[in-house]
Amino acid sequence: MTDLELVGANKSFGGWHKRYRHYSEVLGRDMIFAIFLPPQAEQGKSLPVLYWLSGLTCTDENFMQKAGAQRLAAELGLVIVCPDTSPRGDGVPDDPDGAYDFGWGAGFYINATEQPWSKHYRMYDYVTQEIPALVEANFPVSEQRSVSGHSMGGHGALICALKNPGRYRSVSAFAPIANPSGCPWGQKALERYLGPDQAQWKQWDASVLMAKASEKLPCLVDQGEDDSFLVEQLKPEALEQAASATGYPLTLRRQPGYDHSYYFVATFIDDHLRHHARALGLAG
Amino acid sequence: MTDLELVGANKSFGGWHKRYRHYSEVLGRDMIFAIFLPPQAEQGKSLPVLYWLSGLTCTDENFMQKAGAQRLAAELGLVIVCPDTSPRGDGVPDDPDGAYDFGWGAGFYINATEQPWSKHYRMYDYVTQEIPALVEANFPVSEQRSVSGHSMGGHGALICALKNPGRYRSVSAFAPIANPSGCPWGQKALERYLGPDQAQWKQWDASVLMAKASEKLPCLVDQGEDDSFLVEQLKPEALEQAASATGYPLTLRRQPGYDHSYYFVATFIDDHLRHHARALGLAG
Repeated sequence: MTDLELVGANKSFGGWHKRYRHYSEVLGRDMIFAIFLPPQAEQGKSLPVLYWLSGLTCTDENFMQKAGAQRLAAELGLVIVCPDTSPRGDGVPDDPDGAYDFGWGAGFYINATEQPWSKHYRMYDYVTQEIPALVEANFPVSEQRSVSGHSMGGHGALICALKNPGRYRSVSAFAPIANPSGCPWGQKALERYLGPDQAQWKQWDASVLMAKASEKLPCLVDQGEDDSFLVEQLKPEALEQAASATGYPLTLRRQPGYDHSYYFVATFIDDHLRHHARALGLAG
Repeated sequence: MTDLELVGANKSFGGWHKRYRHYSEVLGRDMIFAIFLPPQAEQGKSLPVLYWLSGLTCTDENFMQKAGAQRLAAELGLVIVCPDTSPRGDGVPDDPDGAYDFGWGAGFYINATEQPWSKHYRMYDYVTQEIPALVEANFPVSEQRSVSGHSMGGHGALICALKNPGRYRSVSAFAPIANPSGCPWGQKALERYLGPDQAQWKQWDASVLMAKASEKLPCLVDQGEDDSFLVEQLKPEALEQAASATGYPLTLRRQPGYDHSYYFVATFIDDHLRHHARALGLAG
């Protein structure tokens, strides 16, 4: 663990919530991630890992503090890893207007190709390669991985799974930005990070990728019907159309009355953990 | 509901998390409180209420966002109400040094008698009388009440129960300031709010009150053994001594490895909800 600096530890449901700082070669920055180690981690077992990708403005902390996932993860023996949502801090360019939907806190889990973003904004490589390698080298975990996320992180979870056959056992999302090349949040980010060629954008669009997916993973998506971003930004119908065109095993649930908040995530997180536990061979 | 202004609503576990602003006659200020209404509230039943009192620096939001209580409260049919931890804002005096442990966010659930605090800092009357009256007039709840809290709010829960025979069915606390007249946090607050007469302080000290309690309520206290405030500020041994002297039905659990955070609270909140549910006659 020489390259991981422990910056916080809280006992939680018989296991541990820990936060680590490390230098990311991919991002060229110190980064902090959080890990929940269930009690089974102290019994020398190799546990499967759920990677959680958070939404706009979040850090490693939002999910760990607000989703209430540790109770069931501790029962199941499931490790959860929460990366940050972008590089940030001195030397990392941010949105010139300080907007919340681009730059710091808004890496969109893609590899930027345009200046000045391409030096640091390589969150796709970070969450699919560097963080799993680090976690698998330093903690009692197996190479059985699943991925989930919320909003921008739901988009992230879907593209990580769809672009990496063989790497994950299951995928899920809460209120994902399902068709970023067709919504304002996505168009702003994709144009700045990738340039004006929309063919490039489509390589990072879950609905486009699902329509030609070679591997089909169990996929659970929850979407609140009273989510104020639903119509303009999230567009789950695009994902549903892609899935039905290719027979992708998508379960998309529209939840009446629920909004975009972590109160929504917390309500359904147990269903998602059980979805992943089944695919990862855990009881529960 | 003419005197309650809805400032936020999130569907949660089939029920609702709502935040209301109201003018408090007792505090002479607009205040915000949060309420969790489980799904049973829409069936016209009169539900029992757990009042949750938060700790230093908190608002109505910390518990609702971080404790993960809604899942089981929704099963049990238990309403939860979270007041703020002090009056605050324009015209309300704060600690002259801006310290976190006095003034805004640090009302200590007592009625101040000293200037300039006595005009607004009457949190005891607010949480034991004004808020329950407001809740019972505006929501489908019964007059069956229980009370719990964390740290400063654990102290608050204990004194509310101990000073009001007949008003609550059960009490619990997480890492309470158990003997405020004997610790720095408490001594600072009690001297400023109440003046130098230590006989006055003891009327707001749970360990002193428990040693002469006339009513004995089911009382559950959890205390993390790795809580950095344990020795200097919290002093659960004083409560334990008071309970054993009078046969008060205190269950004090020392939890190895746990700290003072909401990760600790979340781990044991279900035990506390079930403790209150039993006293309130709910299944579970």
